[in-house]
Amino acid sequence: MFKKVLVANRGEIAVRIIRSLKEMGIKTVAIYSTADRESLHVQLADEAVCVGGPQPTDSYLNIKNILSAAIGTGAQAIHPGYGFLSENAEFAQMCEDCGLTFIGPKANTIDQMGNKEHARQLMMANGVPVTPGSRGFIKDSDEAKKIAAKVGYPVLLKAAAGGGGKGIRQVADPSQMATALASAQSEAKSDFGDDRMYLEKVMQNVKHIEVQIFRDAFGHAVYFPERDCSLQRNKQKVLEESPCDLITQSERKKLGRIALKAAEAADYVNTGTIEFLMDSEHHFYFMEMNTRIQVEHTVTEMVTGVDLVKAQIKVASGEALPFTQEDLKVKGHAIECRINAEDPANNFMPSIGKVEYLYLPVGNPGMRIDTALYQGQQISPYYDSMLAKVVAFGSTRAEAIAKMKRLLNEMVLRGVTTNQDFHLSILNDPTFIKGDFTNTYLEQIFMPRWRNEINDTISA
Amino acid sequence: MFKKVLVANRGEIAVRIIRSLKEMGIKTVAIYSTADRESLHVQLADEAVCVGGPQPTDSYLNIKNILSAAIGTGAQAIHPGYGFLSENAEFAQMCEDCGLTFIGPKANTIDQMGNKEHARQLMMANGVPVTPGSRGFIKDSDEAKKIAAKVGYPVLLKAAAGGGGKGIRQVADPSQMATALASAQSEAKSDFGDDRMYLEKVMQNVKHIEVQIFRDAFGHAVYFPERDCSLQRNKQKVLEESPCDLITQSERKKLGRIALKAAEAADYVNTGTIEFLMDSEHHFYFMEMNTRIQVEHTVTEMVTGVDLVKAQIKVASGEALPFTQEDLKVKGHAIECRINAEDPANNFMPSIGKVEYLYLPVGNPGMRIDTALYQGQQISPYYDSMLAKVVAFGSTRAEAIAKMKRLLNEMVLRGVTTNQDFHLSILNDPTFIKGDFTNTYLEQIFMPRWRNEINDTISA
Repeated sequence: MFKKVLVANRGEIAVRIIRSLKEMGIKTVAIYSTADRESLHVQLADEAVCVGGPQPTDSYLNIKNILSAAIGTGAQAIHPGYGFLSENAEFAQMCEDCGLTFIGPKANTIDQMGNKEHARQLMMANGVPVTPGSRGFIKDSDEAKKIAAKVGYPVLLKAAAGGGGKGIRQVADPSQMATALASAQSEAKSDFGDDRMYLEKVMQNVKHIEVQIFRDAFGHAVYFPERDCSLQRNKQKVLEESPCDLITQSERKKLGRIALKAAEAADYVNTGTIEFLMDSEHHFYFMEMNTRIQVEHTVTEMVTGVDLVKAQIKVASGEALPFTQEDLKVKGHAIECRINAEDPANNFMPSIGKVEYLYLPVGNPGMRIDTALYQGQQISPYYDSMLAKVVAFGSTRAEAIAKMKRLLNEMVLRGVTTNQDFHLSILNDPTFIKGDFTNTYLEQIFMPRWRNEINDTISA
Repeated sequence: MFKKVLVANRGEIAVRIIRSLKEMGIKTVAIYSTADRESLHVQLADEAVCVGGPQPTDSYLNIKNILSAAIGTGAQAIHPGYGFLSENAEFAQMCEDCGLTFIGPKANTIDQMGNKEHARQLMMANGVPVTPGSRGFIKDSDEAKKIAAKVGYPVLLKAAAGGGGKGIRQVADPSQMATALASAQSEAKSDFGDDRMYLEKVMQNVKHIEVQIFRDAFGHAVYFPERDCSLQRNKQKVLEESPCDLITQSERKKLGRIALKAAEAADYVNTGTIEFLMDSEHHFYFMEMNTRIQVEHTVTEMVTGVDLVKAQIKVASGEALPFTQEDLKVKGHAIECRINAEDPANNFMPSIGKVEYLYLPVGNPGMRIDTALYQGQQISPYYDSMLAKVVAFGSTRAEAIAKMKRLLNEMVLRGVTTNQDFHLSILNDPTFIKGDFTNTYLEQIFMPRWRNEINDTISA
């Protein structure tokens, strides 16, 4: 087992990883930007190295400084968390070249899955169903229009190197194609340095269903109960849950087998997530694979009782998977609400400020709040706005919802505007409570109604 | 199901019960003393009624005021928590007489089990093994000496009405008997208003092992994996865990059957705990039954995934047990550390003060902190010194210990002296780590050594 590991991230996920490392008796090295000197992950780690200025490119994306920090502190491995360098194949390769274990899949796997169009082709070739769309990259808007006419509008233009909702445009009819393509390409070029695009049919009335898988170097492979991440805003997940109550046990098994087939096609080692769309007849279509731990891994941990980060570290160090498929039966239901520093009433504008008072309702069975928050902390404008992941577990979905409402009603965060009340509105929504929402429900149906209510309240 | 329930308690257990009630959609009524106006349980409840002054006899033991509060607010049931009126048969009976459901066993059961000597006789009559000792109450010190000579010294003189370590004296030889009996009787008279005493042989090299049971009105009965509560100071539990790794699966089943036999003998409905001593050959001896939820129920919830308080409320409202024996298999290991406002370096003197800064390490899988603490709170001298129950769960005992060490190292409570570091010393102790400590280990072996180390540190 490793004796020392560097965590190449910040915020709640850095804290979460450092905590698992500590429990495993492994020394921890944090990295930080000059904006994060007083952050919790720096305080908790055994050592901490400043790797640059506040801008991510200067610090958390600064490969040279991060590798120097790892080598300088004698770390044997690097855990990348999510975001930043976690899906950067070059970084994974450079770790290996420096004799450091990258805690994640092989660089080649990251590369293959990072190219979303390549991943689609690979899945098709291996019998994994994908959404209708282009085969290969789109040359120009004329070709895009031809394919779109065949699969039917609306369609999505997607950057091959994309992720996090960037480099994506929805196109409703041929007249929008040229502008949308140019705009998506320009965003992709600037964000990913790669403007290759592909095209997918927009699936209607679908849920975003994803399956986390785990494979080790000894041929053991398991899938976890699915997550329903359909509630999204601006292509960002807002609230996630596991399992999806609409899916039957036999569908769950079938979906798990598809996910394992996809993982095998990618020659995957360590944990990753296959994202699918599920239509109203419960057919599943491969969207993409995330080759890292995800924000929402917490709900999976709550329903299965495993520590996924510890398992990542064990498998990366050469151990076998510490659980079997038999251990991963669904026990109850878990929901995660992402608490962001943003102002829902003001078009979700990011908010900053000082955490003047913080009360986190820790206690009672079936709860967890993953966060790097502490009272007195200054929230900076440089990074992702997610402040906390509030997770509620219950023996049923109804119990998990009731618990989440209680948690959000009790939680107090003064000094920074958050989306806490927005989440409470979702939790009280009859369609959410029924569970049959699709991936457009939040933006197209819930939010317009919610905005009207907010405006009524303000004008009243 | 009840629409409104009054919680006749304070501190962490009142908060814990209010939270479960809220999740069940039941309105909550808190009671409070004038010293507790700003306490968390008052803030969280839907309604709160002041029932008297700071002294427990004026408020939390004030039956008349509490029943008035329940009737005045339209509560249908009362949850007594632990301590205070929770094992007061008269109170349970008066609840029933007022048309209020007492969330606990029948008044008659509380009465029978509350008389510890009566409980011993009942268990003997039903084939449950008890420790050697008197049959019936002791008339005087001459009779006590005769029985002690027969079972062998040392012996314990115990108040029939006792509990919480009060009214107990250990007697090493006949010369101490008369004085010890007089002193125990006087304490029992003043604390419980009942000076009847019985005698038990002091069992050597034993563990305190207890089994929580749950029975409903429909004849369903289950037992939970045992708890090891051997680490005690002044007859108070300090650190509890579940299961006891020294006990085999077949011993666990046998112990569970004995516990269910004891519960049946007591005609028990709702949850309660049978406390046993386990000798080095794993024979179990009934000590007493606690007819209420216990402080350490948290570790049982962590290893089984059930919410015991919700189940109490359901069963009290006439529902069947919401789980079966099959659901209660041991999954992993849980440990609880009781964080008290006390100064271990100063003979565990209770401490008071204002909570100037509080950081609770919420997050990551397998943790829970039950507490009514909040930053800015004033800790008063009137009540029990327990401030928080830190609970760690792991797939193994070693993982739970590692997690607990991490939690206690991260937790920050400034302004009030606590036993946080004392717990860390226990967690690092080789005998504790091995798990083969007895119920005298903490006081007789660990603490003298620990005191020397403390003194060395101070003089160094």
